[in-house]
Amino acid sequence: MNLTGLEVRADALLATWADDGAPVTYPTLWLRDNCPSAFHPQTEERVLDLLSLAAQPVLTHAEQGRETVVLHYADGHVSHIALALLAAHRPGRPVSDPAAIPPRLWRGDLAPGGIPRFAAARLAGDDAALETWMRQTAALGLSIVDGLADRVDAGVEIACKIGFLRETNFGMTFEVVSKPDPNNLAYTAVTLPLHTDLPNQEVPPGFQFLHCLANEAQGGGSLFADGFALAEDLRARDPEAFRLLSEVAIPFRFHDRHADIRTHAPVITLDRVGAVREIRWNAHIAATFDMPADVMPAYYRAYRTFMAMTRDPAYQITFKLAAGEMIVFDNRRVLHGREAFDPSTGFRHLHGCYVDRGEFNSRLRLLARTPG
Amino acid sequence: MNLTGLEVRADALLATWADDGAPVTYPTLWLRDNCPSAFHPQTEERVLDLLSLAAQPVLTHAEQGRETVVLHYADGHVSHIALALLAAHRPGRPVSDPAAIPPRLWRGDLAPGGIPRFAAARLAGDDAALETWMRQTAALGLSIVDGLADRVDAGVEIACKIGFLRETNFGMTFEVVSKPDPNNLAYTAVTLPLHTDLPNQEVPPGFQFLHCLANEAQGGGSLFADGFALAEDLRARDPEAFRLLSEVAIPFRFHDRHADIRTHAPVITLDRVGAVREIRWNAHIAATFDMPADVMPAYYRAYRTFMAMTRDPAYQITFKLAAGEMIVFDNRRVLHGREAFDPSTGFRHLHGCYVDRGEFNSRLRLLARTPG
Repeated sequence: MNLTGLEVRADALLATWADDGAPVTYPTLWLRDNCPSAFHPQTEERVLDLLSLAAQPVLTHAEQGRETVVLHYADGHVSHIALALLAAHRPGRPVSDPAAIPPRLWRGDLAPGGIPRFAAARLAGDDAALETWMRQTAALGLSIVDGLADRVDAGVEIACKIGFLRETNFGMTFEVVSKPDPNNLAYTAVTLPLHTDLPNQEVPPGFQFLHCLANEAQGGGSLFADGFALAEDLRARDPEAFRLLSEVAIPFRFHDRHADIRTHAPVITLDRVGAVREIRWNAHIAATFDMPADVMPAYYRAYRTFMAMTRDPAYQITFKLAAGEMIVFDNRRVLHGREAFDPSTGFRHLHGCYVDRGEFNSRLRLLARTPG
Repeated sequence: MNLTGLEVRADALLATWADDGAPVTYPTLWLRDNCPSAFHPQTEERVLDLLSLAAQPVLTHAEQGRETVVLHYADGHVSHIALALLAAHRPGRPVSDPAAIPPRLWRGDLAPGGIPRFAAARLAGDDAALETWMRQTAALGLSIVDGLADRVDAGVEIACKIGFLRETNFGMTFEVVSKPDPNNLAYTAVTLPLHTDLPNQEVPPGFQFLHCLANEAQGGGSLFADGFALAEDLRARDPEAFRLLSEVAIPFRFHDRHADIRTHAPVITLDRVGAVREIRWNAHIAATFDMPADVMPAYYRAYRTFMAMTRDPAYQITFKLAAGEMIVFDNRRVLHGREAFDPSTGFRHLHGCYVDRGEFNSRLRLLARTPG
């Protein structure tokens, strides 16, 4: 990145970059806090004692080199600061992040061919394929991996190419089968309306991996909807409902003999700039609402409006997973559900696990380091 | 809980309780949403289809029984709703939670005898002792367990009485020893100023367990400070600094060959009612600040003010862990650090692990179920 102007003030360096006409202000304390000498050579962690500096170090002059700017301060300190660092870190501007992949919203008209599909064998040995798959999964919020071996660990092994698993009260992995003494509706044969998993956790599990080992029963098709698309359409159509769902935290709770896990959170979580970052939708484990009674009628109206949208086929895609296929989706974005099935007509068995967003994003950043 | 008044309106039930003169309003949709018939008998999850109800069900009359209120609706539905449920869930009021333990703030004058101390053998077999220990640890944010066996797993076994471990990029457990090729300052022999671990994670690890296996080197004392006390004192003394530290999210980042984990979060996180809920303090892995340049000088002033408070002995307690002792602390509240040590004078070895707040709070709720 080329520097087209450099101005020294006592309290800041002003730099103008070729890609942007306006000068960028770098306060002197920031410059000292990010001087290469502030970091441990091995761990790259900051070892500078910030309190050893004046509240506002005084910059006296600056010289531009080929790849650095040399900064001279009144206290005698000299910094050789990389142009690349200054170009990448412009106060007030987001820093580039290989894991910041813009979501590509979808609705019920997403064609089956529009779902990214990758062969398990390819992901196992090829970092470029792994990265492509992960980037597409991040953008759309879901993908399919196929050609998995008929072993319960085959899906988990793919998930672990990304990062370690997220353990929950349901274990490190879980079996979605009809059970005689279910502690969760997933473990019955009834219809499961669209929902996200474990919104009762402070941070619900990130990416979910459901490896289909058998799907021979009648029924048992899978449903998905893009919660970000639902939220954005709600924002456009009914701003007051969107406001309530993003501002009012509601209680979620799961409890059985071995756990009692509760949190308060809004249905729609926004990030610092108001973009939709997370959806929590699970009427089964929404606990007893506790907002003030005078907010309740308006809240219920908003909540039912969103619920009705989740039932609208205009947002849903449905298909039946086949043995050897694995659906992968962002559980904090994409709602999933299933049609009822008749366990007397055949076996249905999904093996599931989660990898959190933190591990997913870390892997994306590592893969982006590798050239090609 | 005794009911002293009951009034039926078409859109709500108004109940007056013996412990509170003002009538509590229960909107009819809320009453239907929480009717016992709305829940699955086995999983206790909600199975009612909320959209099958009118937007505002019409209540016609109510009869009070010994333990229930019987509600009759215009659509013919009859609910038998427990008085206990109505008493416990009053719209606008917090619901009782055994895990909601008010923090008891402390400063540098906390006497060594003021730190809860429990024998490992007692915690291993006694649920009442386990509960007492956990409640005291939650209130103060730290405690000591002593009498641990000289095995690396001895501390982990105590932690697992609470819940499963939180895995991080440093593993399921970690060894705090001086290493030849450190990826983290903890793995050197230098001074570690007070900090919290892994503020670069979306949710930093909750409770930290550091089991001391050897501490024979010169130096290597442990330091602790109550981050909630620091924050509350800052709020009282310097509201503008408190505002900046609780409103401006700053970037945190840890990266090495195997991970690149980043997040933005404020130093002080508040809960929904403005109480301090979490402290993130780690100057080593605070990444390059990216707030607008015009906010930066005021932010640095606030940040340095908090930093100076963390250095003030008025907030610090120090002691040297002995082999067989384990310090347990809320890593999202209590800052920890250590004095430099001289590895040539003896071995220093701590074995560490984390259990998250979610598992901790779940265990507290389960223990509260058991009478006694």
